[in-house]
Amino acid sequence: MKRFCHHFRVPFHELDPGGVLFHAHVFTHAHQAYEALMRELGWGLAAVLREGKLAIPLVEAHAEYLRPLHLDDRIEIQVGTAEIGKRSFTLEYRFLREKGHCVLVKTTHVTVERRSGEAVPLPAELAAALEGYRPEES
Amino acid sequence: MKRFCHHFRVPFHELDPGGVLFHAHVFTHAHQAYEALMRELGWGLAAVLREGKLAIPLVEAHAEYLRPLHLDDRIEIQVGTAEIGKRSFTLEYRFLREKGHCVLVKTTHVTVERRSGEAVPLPAELAAALEGYRPEES
Amino acid sequence: MKRFCHHFRVPFHELDPGGVLFHAHVFTHAHQAYEALMRELGWGLAAVLREGKLAIPLVEAHAEYLRPLHLDDRIEIQVGTAEIGKRSFTLEYRFLREKGHCVLVKTTHVTVERRSGEAVPLPAELAAALEGYRPEES
Amino acid sequence: MKRFCHHFRVPFHELDPGGVLFHAHVFTHAHQAYEALMRELGWGLAAVLREGKLAIPLVEAHAEYLRPLHLDDRIEIQVGTAEIGKRSFTLEYRFLREKGHCVLVKTTHVTVERRSGEAVPLPAELAAALEGYRPEES
Repeated sequence: MKRFCHHFRVPFHELDPGGVLFHAHVFTHAHQAYEALMRELGWGLAAVLREGKLAIPLVEAHAEYLRPLHLDDRIEIQVGTAEIGKRSFTLEYRFLREKGHCVLVKTTHVTVERRSGEAVPLPAELAAALEGYRPEES
Repeated sequence: MKRFCHHFRVPFHELDPGGVLFHAHVFTHAHQAYEALMRELGWGLAAVLREGKLAIPLVEAHAEYLRPLHLDDRIEIQVGTAEIGKRSFTLEYRFLREKGHCVLVKTTHVTVERRSGEAVPLPAELAAALEGYRPEES
Repeated sequence: MKRFCHHFRVPFHELDPGGVLFHAHVFTHAHQAYEALMRELGWGLAAVLREGKLAIPLVEAHAEYLRPLHLDDRIEIQVGTAEIGKRSFTLEYRFLREKGHCVLVKTTHVTVERRSGEAVPLPAELAAALEGYRPEES
Repeated sequence: MKRFCHHFRVPFHELDPGGVLFHAHVFTHAHQAYEALMRELGWGLAAVLREGKLAIPLVEAHAEYLRPLHLDDRIEIQVGTAEIGKRSFTLEYRFLREKGHCVLVKTTHVTVERRSGEAVPLPAELAAALEGYRPEES
């Protein structure tokens, strides 16, 4: 049981006039961590798009902002699986700067048939892969 | 009691490879609706920044995605006040396309002293102004 | 002979820590003006994407920054056709704030067959439509 | 004489509906390469902002798109100094994917006094530092 780690450095163009990361950008960073996790699990989005049957849209996103992020801050995002449902899963992302939590993000994804948009069961292999990133405490 | 309305059209550069609005962009559109509401209330962010004492950072953001948004969709965002606290307030944003709800967003903001970052009481005039946009049903 | 006009207001999330529009965003605003122009000409990108044969990728983009843009500035973008080639066209965009030029953008687009990516002749109807927006002076 | 290298991986949220990087994003990637180069030279933007006297705004930006970038492509940006003027400098950025050039970007920056916005001479130390990244061939 472990967390998946992804790193980024706060870039200039994502700062607001107050000099801190504009809030919406935490969702693109969380998504980049999600993309990296999916690649690690053998479910890279490039392959998912190429195959074309399945889509994994987001149905919910949530962020809690604990501390502002500043230019050049080195951030570690720790991703873990919070929930695995029959047709959905929820990931949580902790943004850390030198061990201190700055932002907490959660995203919920559903598996749908790309053409129809109808929900389909979460593939068993994906569920099993996600299970490996379920932190003990949650 | 009323809702504040803000409009936008889904632009090409916010679409993902599946041809639908990338999820994080709902937060920038909600923020533009918030900026317009604040201007309407006499609390435009340009003036708030210029004056310099107060800052109104986001501490929480949430989105629920009900239906995908497509290129050129004309969206109306209806903003209402969900909660008014002593040092914070929560707004909700309904994204509508031809009367149908597509996305629901909520954001919670706190009022802080800009220098210290310490929470300060919500100015009474701002609280009163926000009260005018509290929908009856919530 | 005329220019096509598109308007926007400088939003908070596109400002940099110096309080001015981050330079890359002028290209997304120019693109939104381009999208609006193409809709006006009967070549809306939604239809182009739906039909699927033709793609019109950018091959060159250029911006000259004359004056910084600030929060809430109301900007008019005047779009005109600078050049029409056999397989390409160039548009220019003047960003004006109260009659004063702030930014000049140019973009060059080619027409390609979507599948192969091979350049194809600019459709005669599109060339004719673009001709209508060629300013006298250029 | 050498080039400064910066790397990134094409993320999902920067793709357009055709599955290729939306053109405007090359300017944010070029800027991140610029930020990294400036840190390397001892002129990190965080310090420049903190000190507060000098600003280094962009006055011109140009991109030439040779080949489309796709999801997960690993890109190397090679930055070099193209020109050093009395109050300005121009950098060029080559975006490479496995040795093949995909995008060429150029940006021109001027040094100004932050308060007044008046152009001031390029500090001699910055000019000398930039000189070290001037490629032989240009």
